[in-house]
Amino acid sequence: MTVSDPCRLTAGEAAAAMADGSLTAVDLLTGLLARIDARDPAVRAWLHVDRAGAMAEAKRLDAERAAGKVRGPLHGIPIALKDVIDVAGMPGTHNSPLHDGRVPVDDAGCVALMRAAGAIPLGKLDTVEFAALGRLPKTVNPHRLTHTAGGSSSGSGAAVGDLHVPISFGTQTGGSVMRPASYCGTYAMKPTWGVVSREGAKLFAASLDTIGWYARSVEDLRLVAAASGIAEQAGTARTVASLRIALCLTPYADKARDGALDVLTRAAEALTAAGATVERVELPASFAEIDDAKDTIMRGEGRAAFLPALLTRGEDLHDTLRGIAEYRTGITPMSLKAAQDHAAHLRMAYEGHYRGFDAVLTFGATGEADAGLESTGNSVFNSLWTLLHLPVIGVPAGDGPTGLPIGVQFVGFRHGDDALLDVAAAAAPVVDPWHGKARVPAG
Amino acid sequence: MTVSDPCRLTAGEAAAAMADGSLTAVDLLTGLLARIDARDPAVRAWLHVDRAGAMAEAKRLDAERAAGKVRGPLHGIPIALKDVIDVAGMPGTHNSPLHDGRVPVDDAGCVALMRAAGAIPLGKLDTVEFAALGRLPKTVNPHRLTHTAGGSSSGSGAAVGDLHVPISFGTQTGGSVMRPASYCGTYAMKPTWGVVSREGAKLFAASLDTIGWYARSVEDLRLVAAASGIAEQAGTARTVASLRIALCLTPYADKARDGALDVLTRAAEALTAAGATVERVELPASFAEIDDAKDTIMRGEGRAAFLPALLTRGEDLHDTLRGIAEYRTGITPMSLKAAQDHAAHLRMAYEGHYRGFDAVLTFGATGEADAGLESTGNSVFNSLWTLLHLPVIGVPAGDGPTGLPIGVQFVGFRHGDDALLDVAAAAAPVVDPWHGKARVPAG
Repeated sequence: MTVSDPCRLTAGEAAAAMADGSLTAVDLLTGLLARIDARDPAVRAWLHVDRAGAMAEAKRLDAERAAGKVRGPLHGIPIALKDVIDVAGMPGTHNSPLHDGRVPVDDAGCVALMRAAGAIPLGKLDTVEFAALGRLPKTVNPHRLTHTAGGSSSGSGAAVGDLHVPISFGTQTGGSVMRPASYCGTYAMKPTWGVVSREGAKLFAASLDTIGWYARSVEDLRLVAAASGIAEQAGTARTVASLRIALCLTPYADKARDGALDVLTRAAEALTAAGATVERVELPASFAEIDDAKDTIMRGEGRAAFLPALLTRGEDLHDTLRGIAEYRTGITPMSLKAAQDHAAHLRMAYEGHYRGFDAVLTFGATGEADAGLESTGNSVFNSLWTLLHLPVIGVPAGDGPTGLPIGVQFVGFRHGDDALLDVAAAAAPVVDPWHGKARVPAG
Repeated sequence: MTVSDPCRLTAGEAAAAMADGSLTAVDLLTGLLARIDARDPAVRAWLHVDRAGAMAEAKRLDAERAAGKVRGPLHGIPIALKDVIDVAGMPGTHNSPLHDGRVPVDDAGCVALMRAAGAIPLGKLDTVEFAALGRLPKTVNPHRLTHTAGGSSSGSGAAVGDLHVPISFGTQTGGSVMRPASYCGTYAMKPTWGVVSREGAKLFAASLDTIGWYARSVEDLRLVAAASGIAEQAGTARTVASLRIALCLTPYADKARDGALDVLTRAAEALTAAGATVERVELPASFAEIDDAKDTIMRGEGRAAFLPALLTRGEDLHDTLRGIAEYRTGITPMSLKAAQDHAAHLRMAYEGHYRGFDAVLTFGATGEADAGLESTGNSVFNSLWTLLHLPVIGVPAGDGPTGLPIGVQFVGFRHGDDALLDVAAAAAPVVDPWHGKARVPAG
C-alpha cells in the first residue's frame, strides 16, 4: 500500500497502512496538519490544535510500534473533540466566555477510552456555547463556505467532513451530532443513552445527553464503538437482502424540504433494489407530540445544568439559558414529570411497534444546510430518537438540489448498538454514492 | 443572642446570630476548627481541611456584611463536601489511589450554588472509593468510635453528626446519603433525581446518582434546597394534624433488626398521638423485586462509568469495579434494558398508589450501625426510593438497644421536594427526641 495523501484515509485504512509499514503516525499527523493549515482558515472548525503534544505522542506511538507494542486498534490515529468534552491539559471553554482560560485536569471518559485504544487527541472543535444555546460557532460548511455546518457539534462535523481528522467526537441532547453529519456529508453514530460515559462532558439534560462520534465509514464508527466497549471488534456480516427495514417519515414529514424526501426515497429504493425488505411503517399516534416532550425535558432538566452559572456568572449567560435556569420557559416540575413519564411509555412502545425489523430508516435532517451562520438548522428529525434513547447511525445518501450533502439515519433498538452497526455496514454501500471513496469538499 | 459554643449551632441559628451581630463568620469557623481539632483525630471524617482558604473567605464575608452586603442565606456558613464532589483548587481524589494528587479546576454545580448563597467550602470528607466500592473510608461513627458511620458518604454523615460543620454534601446511588444519616443521628435530604446538577461529582449510574445533603434540622435542609433552586426560602407551615402519612415497611421488612421496627413504630405512634393520620399502606406486589432492579441498573449503568478507568488504570481498580466494567456481573444489555423499563413502570405506579397521602414513612436503615469498619451497612431500605427518583428526608427518631441512633425516612413524590420539606418540618418535633437540641455524640 502506498499512501499519497494521508488525510483521505479513514481510520481503518490508516491503521492498516501503519500495520503494514507504509505509513507512520508521524506521517499521518503531518498530513492532517497540512490539511488543517490549508483549510481551517476558511472552515474554522478548530478552537485549539495541540501540534506539539500530538507530534510528541505520534513519535512515542511510532516508537512503541517499532518495539512491537500496539496499544489498540486506533494506535496512532488522531482524533478531535468538541470543546464541551474535556482533554486533560488542553483548553476546554465550552465556547463560553464564562470559561475563558479554563484548562481541565482530567480526560473525559470517552477520551480516556480512545487513548487506551492508541488514539491521539489532537485538539478541540468549535461548538454552540455549552452545546446548548448562546455564542455560535464560527465553523462553516466545508462543502459551501457561506453555509452552516449544523450544530451544536459544528466543528466536529466539519473537521471530519473536510478531512482534517478521521474521527471526531460530539454530543447530542437534541440533534447535535446527527444534523452536522447530514450537512457535512459524514457518517456519525449516537449510541444508546447511558452506554458511554458522559463524565467530563458539559451536561445539559440528564435523560438526553449522549456522546456521539463522526467518521467517514461505518467501519470507523465500529472502531470507536469497539474501543468504547459497546460493540465487538469484528461485526457480523449481513447481506443487504437479509435486511428488514421500516421506512418512517416521522410525525414531522411536512418539515422535509430541499430534496430530503427525494434522498430518503432513493435510499429506500436502492435498498429494495439490492434485495432488502423495506416497508413504510409510521410511528403510532401516541408519538404525535414527541418533539414537544423532548423540548419540555430538555428545558426542564436543563434548569439544573444552568442554575449554577446563573447564580454565579448570570450576567455572562445567554438570555435563553437564563430563561431556562429561571424557569421562564413555562415548564413546571409537574409538566417535566409528565414529559418524563410520557417518554418512558414511548420508549417501551417503540420496541413492540418495530419488532421484527432490523432498523428504522428516516431523514437525516430537514434538507441541505442553510445559508448563513445565524442558525445551525432544525433538529426535528433527530431529537425524537434521542428522547427514545435509541442508537442512531447517520449515512451520507446523496445531494440536495443545490449540491450540498443530505444524509439518512438508521435507528436501532436500545442496547442494540452492535447490531445496528451491522445493519449500517450492509446498507452503506447501497445508500452512500461516495461509499469507499474520499469525498473532498468543493467549498 | 449569645453564642457560647458555635459548633452546636445549626446553619439557620448561626445565620441568625450573624445577622444580629452576636457572631461573625470568623467566630463560627474558629469554633468549628476547634471542634475538628478536638474530635477528628478519632472520628476521621476529613480528607482535607482548607483552613487558610476558609479563614480568608470568612474574613471576606464578614467584611462584606459589615459593608451591608449579604450574598445569601448561607452567608458565612462553612460546608463540607464528600470527596467525590469537586471544589476548585482543593484535592479531589474520590478516595482512590487512581487520583492521588488530583486538584480539579471547577466547582461542582452544587458547590457553585452554595457559594452563590454565601457558604464557605471548608474541606473534603472521606468516602468509599468512587462512592462505589473499593478502598473504604477511615471514618468512624461519632457516637461509638468502634462502629461504622455508614457509607458511602461516611465522612459527610459523621462530620455533621459530630458538629464539625452544620452542612455537608454527599451522593446517593443506592443508600449512600440516607444510611449514614440514620447511623450518625443527623437529618439528610436526597432530592428528586435530576433536579440538582451532578456536574463535577464522580458518576456511577446515570439514572440513580443523586446529590444529597446533611444538616441538623429540617430548616437547614430547606436552606440548602432553597439555595439549590428546588424549594422556596420560607416553607408552608403545616400542622401535624393535617398530615396524611402512609406507613410502609417495604418488601424487605424482614431485614429490620436492632430496634429499627420499634423506632419506626414509635415514630408512627407519636405522629398519630399528635393528630396525624397514619395508615399502613404497603407497596403493591409489582415492587417485590425492586432491589434487584436497582442492583441490575447500578451495575449495568456502572459499566460505562468504570470502563475508562479499567482500560487506562485497570491494575489499580478494585476487583468488584473491574467486574462491573468487564460485564462479569451476569448483567447483559437486555437485562439492563428490562430493569430500566421495570423501574419506569414502578415510578408511575407509585404515584397512583400513594395518591392522597403527603408522604410515606419508612425505615431509615436496617438498625444501628455495625461494629467495625469492614462494612458500611445495608442499603436495602434506601435504594428503592433512589430507583424511584423520589425525594427523601431522613429524620433522627431515637436510639436502638445499644444506644446508637436510628432514623426514619419520609418519602415524597417526584418533583415534590418543597412539599416534602413542609411535611418533615411538621413531623420532626414529634418524631425526633433531640429536636431543637444539639446532640453531642458520646463516642
